[in-house]
Amino acid sequence: MSLTKIPLLMIEPCVRAALLEDLGRAGDITCDAVIPPDRVATVALVAREPGVLAGLDFARQAFALIDPHITLTAAFEDGARLAPGTVIATITGPARGILTAERVALNFLGHLSGIASATATIADSISHTKAKITCTRKTTPGLRFAEKYAVRAGGGANHRFGLDDAILIKDNHIAIAGGITAAITAARAKIGHLVKIEVEVDTLDQLDEALTQNPDAILLDNMGPDMLREAVRRIAGRATAEASGRINAETAPAIAETGVDLLSAGWLTHSARVLDIGLDF
Amino acid sequence: MSLTKIPLLMIEPCVRAALLEDLGRAGDITCDAVIPPDRVATVALVAREPGVLAGLDFARQAFALIDPHITLTAAFEDGARLAPGTVIATITGPARGILTAERVALNFLGHLSGIASATATIADSISHTKAKITCTRKTTPGLRFAEKYAVRAGGGANHRFGLDDAILIKDNHIAIAGGITAAITAARAKIGHLVKIEVEVDTLDQLDEALTQNPDAILLDNMGPDMLREAVRRIAGRATAEASGRINAETAPAIAETGVDLLSAGWLTHSARVLDIGLDF
Amino acid sequence: MSLTKIPLLMIEPCVRAALLEDLGRAGDITCDAVIPPDRVATVALVAREPGVLAGLDFARQAFALIDPHITLTAAFEDGARLAPGTVIATITGPARGILTAERVALNFLGHLSGIASATATIADSISHTKAKITCTRKTTPGLRFAEKYAVRAGGGANHRFGLDDAILIKDNHIAIAGGITAAITAARAKIGHLVKIEVEVDTLDQLDEALTQNPDAILLDNMGPDMLREAVRRIAGRATAEASGRINAETAPAIAETGVDLLSAGWLTHSARVLDIGLDF
Amino acid sequence: MSLTKIPLLMIEPCVRAALLEDLGRAGDITCDAVIPPDRVATVALVAREPGVLAGLDFARQAFALIDPHITLTAAFEDGARLAPGTVIATITGPARGILTAERVALNFLGHLSGIASATATIADSISHTKAKITCTRKTTPGLRFAEKYAVRAGGGANHRFGLDDAILIKDNHIAIAGGITAAITAARAKIGHLVKIEVEVDTLDQLDEALTQNPDAILLDNMGPDMLREAVRRIAGRATAEASGRINAETAPAIAETGVDLLSAGWLTHSARVLDIGLDF
Amino acid sequence: MSLTKIPLLMIEPCVRAALLEDLGRAGDITCDAVIPPDRVATVALVAREPGVLAGLDFARQAFALIDPHITLTAAFEDGARLAPGTVIATITGPARGILTAERVALNFLGHLSGIASATATIADSISHTKAKITCTRKTTPGLRFAEKYAVRAGGGANHRFGLDDAILIKDNHIAIAGGITAAITAARAKIGHLVKIEVEVDTLDQLDEALTQNPDAILLDNMGPDMLREAVRRIAGRATAEASGRINAETAPAIAETGVDLLSAGWLTHSARVLDIGLDF
Amino acid sequence: MSLTKIPLLMIEPCVRAALLEDLGRAGDITCDAVIPPDRVATVALVAREPGVLAGLDFARQAFALIDPHITLTAAFEDGARLAPGTVIATITGPARGILTAERVALNFLGHLSGIASATATIADSISHTKAKITCTRKTTPGLRFAEKYAVRAGGGANHRFGLDDAILIKDNHIAIAGGITAAITAARAKIGHLVKIEVEVDTLDQLDEALTQNPDAILLDNMGPDMLREAVRRIAGRATAEASGRINAETAPAIAETGVDLLSAGWLTHSARVLDIGLDF
Repeated sequence: MSLTKIPLLMIEPCVRAALLEDLGRAGDITCDAVIPPDRVATVALVAREPGVLAGLDFARQAFALIDPHITLTAAFEDGARLAPGTVIATITGPARGILTAERVALNFLGHLSGIASATATIADSISHTKAKITCTRKTTPGLRFAEKYAVRAGGGANHRFGLDDAILIKDNHIAIAGGITAAITAARAKIGHLVKIEVEVDTLDQLDEALTQNPDAILLDNMGPDMLREAVRRIAGRATAEASGRINAETAPAIAETGVDLLSAGWLTHSARVLDIGLDF
Repeated sequence: MSLTKIPLLMIEPCVRAALLEDLGRAGDITCDAVIPPDRVATVALVAREPGVLAGLDFARQAFALIDPHITLTAAFEDGARLAPGTVIATITGPARGILTAERVALNFLGHLSGIASATATIADSISHTKAKITCTRKTTPGLRFAEKYAVRAGGGANHRFGLDDAILIKDNHIAIAGGITAAITAARAKIGHLVKIEVEVDTLDQLDEALTQNPDAILLDNMGPDMLREAVRRIAGRATAEASGRINAETAPAIAETGVDLLSAGWLTHSARVLDIGLDF
Repeated sequence: MSLTKIPLLMIEPCVRAALLEDLGRAGDITCDAVIPPDRVATVALVAREPGVLAGLDFARQAFALIDPHITLTAAFEDGARLAPGTVIATITGPARGILTAERVALNFLGHLSGIASATATIADSISHTKAKITCTRKTTPGLRFAEKYAVRAGGGANHRFGLDDAILIKDNHIAIAGGITAAITAARAKIGHLVKIEVEVDTLDQLDEALTQNPDAILLDNMGPDMLREAVRRIAGRATAEASGRINAETAPAIAETGVDLLSAGWLTHSARVLDIGLDF
Repeated sequence: MSLTKIPLLMIEPCVRAALLEDLGRAGDITCDAVIPPDRVATVALVAREPGVLAGLDFARQAFALIDPHITLTAAFEDGARLAPGTVIATITGPARGILTAERVALNFLGHLSGIASATATIADSISHTKAKITCTRKTTPGLRFAEKYAVRAGGGANHRFGLDDAILIKDNHIAIAGGITAAITAARAKIGHLVKIEVEVDTLDQLDEALTQNPDAILLDNMGPDMLREAVRRIAGRATAEASGRINAETAPAIAETGVDLLSAGWLTHSARVLDIGLDF
Repeated sequence: MSLTKIPLLMIEPCVRAALLEDLGRAGDITCDAVIPPDRVATVALVAREPGVLAGLDFARQAFALIDPHITLTAAFEDGARLAPGTVIATITGPARGILTAERVALNFLGHLSGIASATATIADSISHTKAKITCTRKTTPGLRFAEKYAVRAGGGANHRFGLDDAILIKDNHIAIAGGITAAITAARAKIGHLVKIEVEVDTLDQLDEALTQNPDAILLDNMGPDMLREAVRRIAGRATAEASGRINAETAPAIAETGVDLLSAGWLTHSARVLDIGLDF
Repeated sequence: MSLTKIPLLMIEPCVRAALLEDLGRAGDITCDAVIPPDRVATVALVAREPGVLAGLDFARQAFALIDPHITLTAAFEDGARLAPGTVIATITGPARGILTAERVALNFLGHLSGIASATATIADSISHTKAKITCTRKTTPGLRFAEKYAVRAGGGANHRFGLDDAILIKDNHIAIAGGITAAITAARAKIGHLVKIEVEVDTLDQLDEALTQNPDAILLDNMGPDMLREAVRRIAGRATAEASGRINAETAPAIAETGVDLLSAGWLTHSARVLDIGLDF
């Protein structure tokens, strides 16, 4: 199963904005003053620590937008496992342009590879189960499409992309709607036939009520392994079972082994450490 | 010394874009189906862990753009120290709008407060010295102006905002330009009178050469405390001394005690963990 | 079940762009020359033929963006049935602004009410069945969110909003993928847990194959009532049954009576006649 | 007389926006999952009913923006008469991209060809007279430049493109300005030397008053053939005579035979049925 | 005859962009550091030299966008004659915002008032004739709508706003089209009924040929007063007579006295000196 | 020392907007009607008066965006001295596109070359001194990056690009802050280590106070040569000395001979006359 690429149409404006943010009103005054315009260079894009690659098209676009004479020849594709020292790609072209685009290219690459790497860590830890790791809407403003892609690159699955592509009934919705049954009923009356419904439950009693309404998925929030195992038993395959709360590389295996289908973690996109990737001249 | 606010003119389009990213093409289909339009709510914005607040204007704007009838009354300002459980603000208005804007508001608030909190940790650890903690251009694409602000909210200082507001001559520039003297000479010949020059050095020999060219600042890259102390001695106040490389809460005090003026750390903006802030109904 | 509103955040840029398209570079040179700036007027927004109202917020925004002193007081809400001569709203304020915004306001109102009215015609014709009328992705470029809303205002249901919020496997996908089973299998392996799968079938044999793969919905393309009835019998409630092809007010009842869940029609959004709504001074 | 093309500079952002509207945040998840990335296809763009072609550059741009390796080789140009089954163009390239761009390309092509075809129907019906069919400002928001082009492709003439490129004094302007003479006098005092003045009249008395002010054109609103014939006699070639109101293929010939120069119809752009054009694999 | 205002809808994005251009990524770091946030000020907008006012709405918008608490109370309207020392308006509000917006407000006001003043100088010099001064398409990129307005504020008339609102056949068009007759014939065959045709002629022979084609206007390029007088005689009121080339305050009266209708000058918009307007604290 | 180019990434959107401003909604209706689509032309870009070239990339981009088949072959680079009649470049391609893009290309070229030429006049007049001519923030809204570039092309130096890249404490700041010392102290406490401080002084007493605070630069406002000479003596190389006020080709030499480092003049960017450059067919 190959990784789905993001259309360049979506990548280009995002990278363009990042470059303009960095160029400001006067451009790269250091390179302009210090680097001869005719100097050509070949540099290596190198992983400085182990991880999973994501964002190569963003980096390629950064160099190409600054100078179309720069070419990036990749030795790996997004999703590849990187060892420290791995040469990810070779970049050739005018040295000025390479140095000007370097930081923006690395900012995208480090950020997205960091998310992919964090995802892969969890994915690896639960690979002996049927469970998958998935993300949330806790993403960096403006970068959701890219961060969701990085999660896929790391072997994770995608949750909702926004408020509009699925129903997710949370505790506050339930409280205001007057209960799980009322909330699911209201939702079902309004949505299109291709929209799924997920409902968050905190207790087994709530779960039992939810199951009477046949939601497509159930978010089991902050339950321990024993309770999750019982929840999975009660769901009995009638809905996707998603566990959330305190998911990390230590806790994930035990949670996955309860039989849930999904583990979701907001920190994959909002708090993953950047993967250290650099340019070697 | 009060914290400088970001003009709303710069905050508004950023928050607007984040809301539209979340609303997609169909809007908040859960709230639309489940929450009665006339239901009003008052909720509390609460810190769930200790940290430093940053991004209140982004959160306020998120609620206001979704529904101008929502008001956010803040008990604290950006830069404030938060204890777990601190009620940062009270938000009152239509429940639908509050729930629709919640995630975007928290995404900004958590991200920026996370950066402020990380900065404050370092700032606190070196408060017995004259040194300050500063950021880099390793920022999240599209959010540089906001992340630099968060660093200030955490008590840090700002480095360059982009490629165009100061000269920073790094190792690759030096290599291509043919040495530190050549690079600084080329830069000085071209820049305006309000542009400063900083040069990166890896060794004391490079430092000595740099000092002959009177740069405004010197970036002492990856030097240990002893070498930094010697560097500071040689600089003797003639330039700002900035130490970079492996700066964290453990290493910072010893580095700051060498007498450098600045410690810079890219992870403040690219890898700080989100601060956990939530909405209590 | 009340009609879900579109957030003003999404309406405003769309109306703004339409006004600027009409104002060009010199503005409303007729009103500027002919209408005294201090003249105030009260006008009535009147339906000139029977239909269903949609787009009032677009019209209100058009007047408000041209002159915030113009107020629109509505007697009806979107979704209301209009008789010829119905006064939909009263608009009061500077006559110049009212005349300048008039055409853009009416262009939105007529277009969206036309879609709502066409939808209602079909919805009425099948109201004795459980079937609903739904739209497609055959929308006017730039107006999909608005046109999908108009379908809801007319009592219809929404199909996919784009290529990204559900899987819809059509004939060409099946041909290239190597069959229905292969296509559904490939899709299921990649999608998130909140994404539904619909597959198009042209024959009962294809339907039988599709049913072995448990898709969420099946698009029964261009089948006559007898074949549809047999298809519904075979589906037996295991998937949403959607009939498409040649749906109009004459054909709809017989198709709906076959027991399908949905009738879909592209012309609702791409070919509905504008509803004639005017401004009476 | 060849058809004037729209500059690509104006087409590109419009098509780009339509593609992004369809791709949403996750792109074409069906093709991504189901169509092998290396599959190449050649497909035919085929007219399914008779009509006039318009919008080929919009379709070409849709495919090119999704994947520059897709080429569209046209057998006809905009303005061409299409018979059912006519192969308009051949499209070759990666199957994924072709399928992803298909709907947006067809949405533009069907919409614009629909307008061109409706225009041509009227134009044909009055081709034995000197009269031309023309459009109005009753266009779809955001698409005016494209719809006006489609009218030309169908053999029609263009009326005003906006509020700013000509004076058109209508009944409400006249009422507020205090009469036709006052309104034309006010307009003439303000406009530049390259701006024409048209005035709407409902009666022959109004026409007589208008003619004393030498407007460039007169809009004869909702007059029957006899009254139009008398109006043309009184105008006597001193102004362009434009008939409006209830123009369709049945009424147009008799109206055109009265000697008017123009017949104008808003429905050409706001209510023309889409022309059925499809992609055959 | 009052001056036509530009809709705020067109002014706002232009002023917003100019403010963001000035604020950069860090905002007004001088005011932020030096001016207490609670300091309120009242300042006077003062003309430092004689001239004609234009651009007050741009200035007002600049202050309002930076801080809605700033109010600008104008003593004059655009088009007013200013003596040195005239207090144009009083501005009251937070001192920080006033100082931050000052330069952008003055940049618009000085630029547009400069154009209005230059226009008025010519207009005054020919006020004893029927001729008017008009502008060209030689405008500053991005500011055409504003500069055309400034010309009107100075008592001038507007020529074409762009390539699309009138036909202007110049020497190169004539050369390629194969002569004046061919060019006008081709143009007339294609344009809508509300589009005027102007043709440029350099000689009286060209004029005679042009007159056989009944253009709406004739641009008499670089002719001296005697030749202009003869041209006006030959035109005999059948077309608008526009004189261009070397129009300035010295040459204008003699040119206007030849009987031409218009004098056009590109320098009004591309080379007018800024009017010196300042802010007095 | 070669001239630093502006990244195409910054030029392209600016030129694109200017072209769309000129094309309006209907495009170049004159060329469309009059120029055969297959006509190819070669034209010369010619200086009609002496000056300094600036803006070639803007012109090249204007032609390329209208038609990529147009090529511009330059004989000179920006910064070159032009004599009347100098052929700057040869442009070859479809005549329609060349004529359509001509005005926008020349508007950029004339405006920027006018600024470069004005700058060069001053630069030449002070070339016997060490002083340089520099610009201000008095730029045309939207074109600051381009106008600052034109100043460099003319041999000038750049002052601040915006409110955010340096501190400039002016008279009003000083008055509100409570004096020069207070203002500089406040500024120094807040700014980053790469931000310089300049302070404006009107008297020698103010200068003396300023010097006690060690600013990076001092703006000597409206002082005559004698006073400037004394000021330079007192500054004694401890800060950059900038003279402003009434700088022109006559006054500049005497001011520069006082020993100041910089002469600044707002009129370079806001009031320079366009350089007359044309296209010869």
